[in-house]
Amino acid sequence: MSNKMWGGRFSSSPDAIMETINASIDVDRHLYRQDIAASKAHAAMLADQGIITAGDASQIAGGLDTILSEIEAGKFNFQRALEDVHMNVESRLAELIGPAAGRLHTARSRNDQVATDFKLWVRDTIDGIDAALADFQMALTEKAIEHADTVMPGLTHLQTAQPVTFGHHLLAYVEMMERDRGRFTDARKRLNESPLGSAALAGTSFPLDREKTAKALGFDRPTGNSLDAVSDRDFVMEALAAATICAVHLSRLAEEIVIWTSPLTGLMRLSDKFTTGSSIMPQKRNPDAAELVRAKTGRIAGALQSIVMVMKGLPLAYQKDMQEDKEGAMDALGALSLCIAAMTGMVRDIEPDAARMKKAAGEGYATATDLADWLVRELNIPFRQAHHITGSIVAEASKAGLPLHRVPLETMQAIEPKITDEVFKVLSVDRSVQSRDSYGGTAPKNVRLQGKRWLKRLEKGRS
Amino acid sequence: MSNKMWGGRFSSSPDAIMETINASIDVDRHLYRQDIAASKAHAAMLADQGIITAGDASQIAGGLDTILSEIEAGKFNFQRALEDVHMNVESRLAELIGPAAGRLHTARSRNDQVATDFKLWVRDTIDGIDAALADFQMALTEKAIEHADTVMPGLTHLQTAQPVTFGHHLLAYVEMMERDRGRFTDARKRLNESPLGSAALAGTSFPLDREKTAKALGFDRPTGNSLDAVSDRDFVMEALAAATICAVHLSRLAEEIVIWTSPLTGLMRLSDKFTTGSSIMPQKRNPDAAELVRAKTGRIAGALQSIVMVMKGLPLAYQKDMQEDKEGAMDALGALSLCIAAMTGMVRDIEPDAARMKKAAGEGYATATDLADWLVRELNIPFRQAHHITGSIVAEASKAGLPLHRVPLETMQAIEPKITDEVFKVLSVDRSVQSRDSYGGTAPKNVRLQGKRWLKRLEKGRS
Amino acid sequence: MSNKMWGGRFSSSPDAIMETINASIDVDRHLYRQDIAASKAHAAMLADQGIITAGDASQIAGGLDTILSEIEAGKFNFQRALEDVHMNVESRLAELIGPAAGRLHTARSRNDQVATDFKLWVRDTIDGIDAALADFQMALTEKAIEHADTVMPGLTHLQTAQPVTFGHHLLAYVEMMERDRGRFTDARKRLNESPLGSAALAGTSFPLDREKTAKALGFDRPTGNSLDAVSDRDFVMEALAAATICAVHLSRLAEEIVIWTSPLTGLMRLSDKFTTGSSIMPQKRNPDAAELVRAKTGRIAGALQSIVMVMKGLPLAYQKDMQEDKEGAMDALGALSLCIAAMTGMVRDIEPDAARMKKAAGEGYATATDLADWLVRELNIPFRQAHHITGSIVAEASKAGLPLHRVPLETMQAIEPKITDEVFKVLSVDRSVQSRDSYGGTAPKNVRLQGKRWLKRLEKGRS
Amino acid sequence: MSNKMWGGRFSSSPDAIMETINASIDVDRHLYRQDIAASKAHAAMLADQGIITAGDASQIAGGLDTILSEIEAGKFNFQRALEDVHMNVESRLAELIGPAAGRLHTARSRNDQVATDFKLWVRDTIDGIDAALADFQMALTEKAIEHADTVMPGLTHLQTAQPVTFGHHLLAYVEMMERDRGRFTDARKRLNESPLGSAALAGTSFPLDREKTAKALGFDRPTGNSLDAVSDRDFVMEALAAATICAVHLSRLAEEIVIWTSPLTGLMRLSDKFTTGSSIMPQKRNPDAAELVRAKTGRIAGALQSIVMVMKGLPLAYQKDMQEDKEGAMDALGALSLCIAAMTGMVRDIEPDAARMKKAAGEGYATATDLADWLVRELNIPFRQAHHITGSIVAEASKAGLPLHRVPLETMQAIEPKITDEVFKVLSVDRSVQSRDSYGGTAPKNVRLQGKRWLKRLEKGRS
Repeated sequence: MSNKMWGGRFSSSPDAIMETINASIDVDRHLYRQDIAASKAHAAMLADQGIITAGDASQIAGGLDTILSEIEAGKFNFQRALEDVHMNVESRLAELIGPAAGRLHTARSRNDQVATDFKLWVRDTIDGIDAALADFQMALTEKAIEHADTVMPGLTHLQTAQPVTFGHHLLAYVEMMERDRGRFTDARKRLNESPLGSAALAGTSFPLDREKTAKALGFDRPTGNSLDAVSDRDFVMEALAAATICAVHLSRLAEEIVIWTSPLTGLMRLSDKFTTGSSIMPQKRNPDAAELVRAKTGRIAGALQSIVMVMKGLPLAYQKDMQEDKEGAMDALGALSLCIAAMTGMVRDIEPDAARMKKAAGEGYATATDLADWLVRELNIPFRQAHHITGSIVAEASKAGLPLHRVPLETMQAIEPKITDEVFKVLSVDRSVQSRDSYGGTAPKNVRLQGKRWLKRLEKGRS
Repeated sequence: MSNKMWGGRFSSSPDAIMETINASIDVDRHLYRQDIAASKAHAAMLADQGIITAGDASQIAGGLDTILSEIEAGKFNFQRALEDVHMNVESRLAELIGPAAGRLHTARSRNDQVATDFKLWVRDTIDGIDAALADFQMALTEKAIEHADTVMPGLTHLQTAQPVTFGHHLLAYVEMMERDRGRFTDARKRLNESPLGSAALAGTSFPLDREKTAKALGFDRPTGNSLDAVSDRDFVMEALAAATICAVHLSRLAEEIVIWTSPLTGLMRLSDKFTTGSSIMPQKRNPDAAELVRAKTGRIAGALQSIVMVMKGLPLAYQKDMQEDKEGAMDALGALSLCIAAMTGMVRDIEPDAARMKKAAGEGYATATDLADWLVRELNIPFRQAHHITGSIVAEASKAGLPLHRVPLETMQAIEPKITDEVFKVLSVDRSVQSRDSYGGTAPKNVRLQGKRWLKRLEKGRS
Repeated sequence: MSNKMWGGRFSSSPDAIMETINASIDVDRHLYRQDIAASKAHAAMLADQGIITAGDASQIAGGLDTILSEIEAGKFNFQRALEDVHMNVESRLAELIGPAAGRLHTARSRNDQVATDFKLWVRDTIDGIDAALADFQMALTEKAIEHADTVMPGLTHLQTAQPVTFGHHLLAYVEMMERDRGRFTDARKRLNESPLGSAALAGTSFPLDREKTAKALGFDRPTGNSLDAVSDRDFVMEALAAATICAVHLSRLAEEIVIWTSPLTGLMRLSDKFTTGSSIMPQKRNPDAAELVRAKTGRIAGALQSIVMVMKGLPLAYQKDMQEDKEGAMDALGALSLCIAAMTGMVRDIEPDAARMKKAAGEGYATATDLADWLVRELNIPFRQAHHITGSIVAEASKAGLPLHRVPLETMQAIEPKITDEVFKVLSVDRSVQSRDSYGGTAPKNVRLQGKRWLKRLEKGRS
Repeated sequence: MSNKMWGGRFSSSPDAIMETINASIDVDRHLYRQDIAASKAHAAMLADQGIITAGDASQIAGGLDTILSEIEAGKFNFQRALEDVHMNVESRLAELIGPAAGRLHTARSRNDQVATDFKLWVRDTIDGIDAALADFQMALTEKAIEHADTVMPGLTHLQTAQPVTFGHHLLAYVEMMERDRGRFTDARKRLNESPLGSAALAGTSFPLDREKTAKALGFDRPTGNSLDAVSDRDFVMEALAAATICAVHLSRLAEEIVIWTSPLTGLMRLSDKFTTGSSIMPQKRNPDAAELVRAKTGRIAGALQSIVMVMKGLPLAYQKDMQEDKEGAMDALGALSLCIAAMTGMVRDIEPDAARMKKAAGEGYATATDLADWLVRELNIPFRQAHHITGSIVAEASKAGLPLHRVPLETMQAIEPKITDEVFKVLSVDRSVQSRDSYGGTAPKNVRLQGKRWLKRLEKGRS
């Protein structure tokens, strides 16, 4: 980027200032593949419609292929004086094939061209993210099945509330990622209309076949209004909104990993693949990757806010402001992809300390609600009253320094005579999680069932 | 709101501070309708499953109906000491029906209850917004058909670029609103899973039928993971993201209305329905409503950013932070609804000054691209060369102080001998817009066709 | 707020829509005190300059005093039809004193009036926040002195790094709050120029004495440019920026409190003044207040972003968009004040578990850097080499399952023969913190010194 | 940047992922100058305090100078495997001078080192921005003096309100920039405390002289608390908040330039230095630079929001999240500097069309308030009544199609008999602006006076 990483004073001629602020080549050069594909589709259509000759179209296609090879081989000389990727490509095309190059830009404008290119880029990127999210879901699901029975403290307010299973916890993230994939998929469908042929803003008098170029580029249809087509950046905002929500999800798991692997809790352990150590403190495993995933939410949400602020209050049609649409989006979607990859790796890597987790899960009378529910279910006591009785029993247990499953039956019966020793079946941590087998509940058998359902679905998605 | 509109110093006892920061009743009371509906569905299901008796369920339902009437009649006394809408309702229920009220909370928790209530509220609100957007599209479409032939300057960079029709310009916003409706519809589909029965975080040991409550409340299905169900606020973030993008669209039209109705341009006129005047300057029509629509984008985008910041890095499951989800969402979605209504009114109200618009549309050699396209199309000159020739002709015209359609044929032929007087068919503003009849282009016949297509679709949506 | 808490569909007449979107009285009524003060100052100056008579000025002042009493007694009937606080007050004044009321608005406009009123409100609010921050610093300092010797784990990456004292940790927040106070103080100085007399946008032809009204209202001077004076909302943005940074600080301490009081770490304990419990789980103390403080950062940062988005790209001078400046600022600054009060209470309330903190502080070879520093200091070994030797010793200790201060001297000497038993003086947690007595370091004597310095400064600020 | 401009799928080994997400060298290499300066100051102090020998210090200083030369000559090979700028520099130092290099890191840590480096960088950048803002103020002031008499329409709501002078309008921006400079200056003062010597988080047991390193690096003093020193990124947030407000100001002028230079208004003209043209539409001057300045507000405000989101809820002390502090700040402050330079150029370049501006200034009865004020001032009519009379006169004028200064005296007297022909002295546009000579008003003599005051102040600031 031209003005990246720069912090001093800008004292230059108007020419230098204008070139610096105006040129987009450092950013939009990343659209070269999409730009060339769109130009090839456009030229082929122009020939089919008799607007240019087949010979010209063929020359153009050949020249564009050459340029693609040159760029991918690192041999293309992008020139800032030519401002953007479109002019760089067209200028090189003229060198390669001469005057026929001058026919490529018939019935199009940089306004519909850049909208088309960037839509294609966002679409490609969404496809990459979707595949990465599927990989991540697979890692979560496999780990969840492995830990369907591994008990851990279920927390609210970071306070121990009820025992849950680690498998169940991981599957919660599979659900989140599924919604994230849904948002990206919906965004992809909505953006998939071709702006090409909208020309500068008003359409054109050439007898275009916009359906044809749309189809050639994998779009579902051409856009229905030329002014909208060149003014629209919804696809950037929507993709960044989906990315922001996904990043929030990742940040939540990242925070949990930081807490779980802290020696203060000691619940889990990351290997040195995703931590950095200290040469003098061998126990220190800084969860750098998790912290960075958590932090990158800021960058992604900031990019969304930036493009919203750029677009706010812009009159139709193309305004130069819209050139600011790419850099933030490229940076943010790249950061998201990296975060997904890092989280996939960490989920595969992390190892729970099952003994410490189980111990923590049972502390603080975490099965008290199991007792209350038993009173309701077995003794038909109204919930609010059962709640009250349970409070009294726990108070006695606490006074005696006993965990709930060690309180003598008589103590309980002194409070509620109808209690039988059946009650002990629900007071241990293991029994507690097994009992919560309502649909969506944490019971190991639920986790295994849901895990298999996800596995099947993810494997199907792969093929 | 408890701490709304307050700006001074807070010096109070811990009790007062805690009550002020903790209570949510000023905000969540707006969920009363959803809270009561969810409780009724829950009680009916508990009875069907034999968890409570039919008699208790019937008493509960009757009591809840009474409470609903009391609230709607303004006779319900919401108490801050009872913290939230859930406890206010349950407490009143106990007064009305006695001990049976204590069975309502069986197999549920405030965590799944508030998630259910707020999802229902957001869903209802989305439905209201969708209807308002359809009305707005109708207003735009009707105005567009009326002005299918009304020519106006098509602008890029706020510079005159090519003539377009006002109808075409209005239809661009119909497209935007259609995408907005799509985003809200997708958000609605995605949120439409019932959290009810997830209990505090781990599910429950009662034999619930979550499908039944889901169906009774219009949900498509129950959520698949109890931890996710009580921790998820995606539906708030996604609805606010859709609202933000929609607000950006409205702000663009608002900016245009401010510019169009400024005496500096004089292109259009709003009546005093949507402007404020000055008792001493009769011409002054301040477009207050448009300015406020433009400004409210800030509030809506701010609400999105707020909830993203709240949710970032929160461990599962419920954290008290999540109580901050409602106020901003309610405010922002209310503001959006108001903005849509105001824009619908303004679009119906605004009157273009056709003569000034046509004059402005023709200035600055706005049909120069028509000339260049004619050269390509009729004389088969490569686009880039045609562009060059056009530049020379316009330069001559400019030197002579003539508009393009008044330049003598000889002057043109001196530059490109093959030009014939056929060229004049494309150089007037009206001819220019008529010629741009490619799919999505600005030609009046396109506008009428698209307009009718939209009318049919919108009328179908209504029935 | 008119459209607060609303989520459905807005279907109303243009009149109702316009009144709803346009009226500001629900928000700006909170400026009544400032509005009346500014009007009194204006009227007095008009009389002094001979622009109105002393008799009229006296009548106006009397009427305004009456209105102030009426409002404070809750007897004033704010009418939405009169749009804003200014018109409500002036209209009532006319009722009270007749035609003389019509002279009050001489040489002023609602544009300079509202800028003046809101500046005064922000200034008053800043003063309240500054006092609250001073109280908070006092609470932190007193607690810090009390815990100058209380050792706790110093964390980086939530991993144990080096022992620190709790007093030192608390003083870190005193530093942050001091910078926050500095930012608010600077904002206050910068805003303290009076817009009054700038009239609508261009100044006036009346012979005003703007110095006089500025002085009467406590401003340092009148603003230097009338266009700027009515277009400027820097004071809102700057106050919200200061509030946002302050909220970030509070959120950091809130997060720490959530972690410290979690049973997973068990380092500290909050009483039930700032927690909510569970009737059946007596150990559960949900740190609701801390979570809400953490969450409210979102609301405050969102308000900043909103006003930035509103102001972006607004032409001079007054635009109706600027009416959106108040509600978010009032809400955010109110939320900040509440958060400061809550944190002050929590800091006074929290009790560390000194034994658990000391134990945690010593785990993970947290004094390894003390050993390395000893090697450098006492044996003159280069830092990087000392680091290497320390690593080897810790590895031996770890292999033997010993804490560092229990490793036999011979084991150490086998690695570095020059080590003497003097080394044990730095290997305990207490010795470690005592040794870090460089300026700003964590040593108890430093904490006591800094604590006293702050106490003196804060007490001086009070008098 | 490692993951810049990237949009596809990340499928790599854990090692590659970790290196990519963890390395900061692509960003923090820009701190090399500050890093070397801080190391030199640290080494000199260590020698002065007898912690290392003078010989070692001298070797270190020499080696660091060599490294500085190598980097500035583009001959330094930054290695990603060495993670960051600190390790790259220290590693090269070891190559150059051998074991003495190992003594440099005594009594310091990367945590205090990076805080010191980045503070120095931000400070340097603020100094550059301040100088650029002073240049911009000079350009505004010179243009303002030149156009002290040039009348233009003063707008509210983009509606003509009262005539103002272009000079007055430009001076409004000088005021804004002065506040911006104040904010940057205050931020600079507040950040100017040296973290160096805070070590990892707890201070150190070496007998440092932190005053000495602070002084050597131009800091006012050392920071007072080591935990705060390494955890604090206020200086980034505050600098970005100042930058955001400044960017909002620039965006307002940018919007005005876009409107003023649009052919729809035709008020002013930019040369092709800051516009882009069209080869076929010679009148088209797209104000690209102004549009980009307007748009870059989004990027700058987004960077602020990002760092706020990163810092929110981070426990003390250093967390890896904080590594995300640099890239956004460098990008945003660089963008601001570029925007200031571009606006300075545009202000020097822009030429008003004085005739069109004057004509527009007089339209819409823009001097109606002058008439009302005359009635108050000369005839002692209460303001509200004068307002009413004026409304009647303007209505008559409007009916007769006359501008206010052409309405016959008799017509006026029929409405208010006391009006004399003195009234015509205030009804022309020129008289109107001349009359508004209250302090801060738009009168040409005021503009000249204020302009000279600014000139003197700016020239003084230069010397």
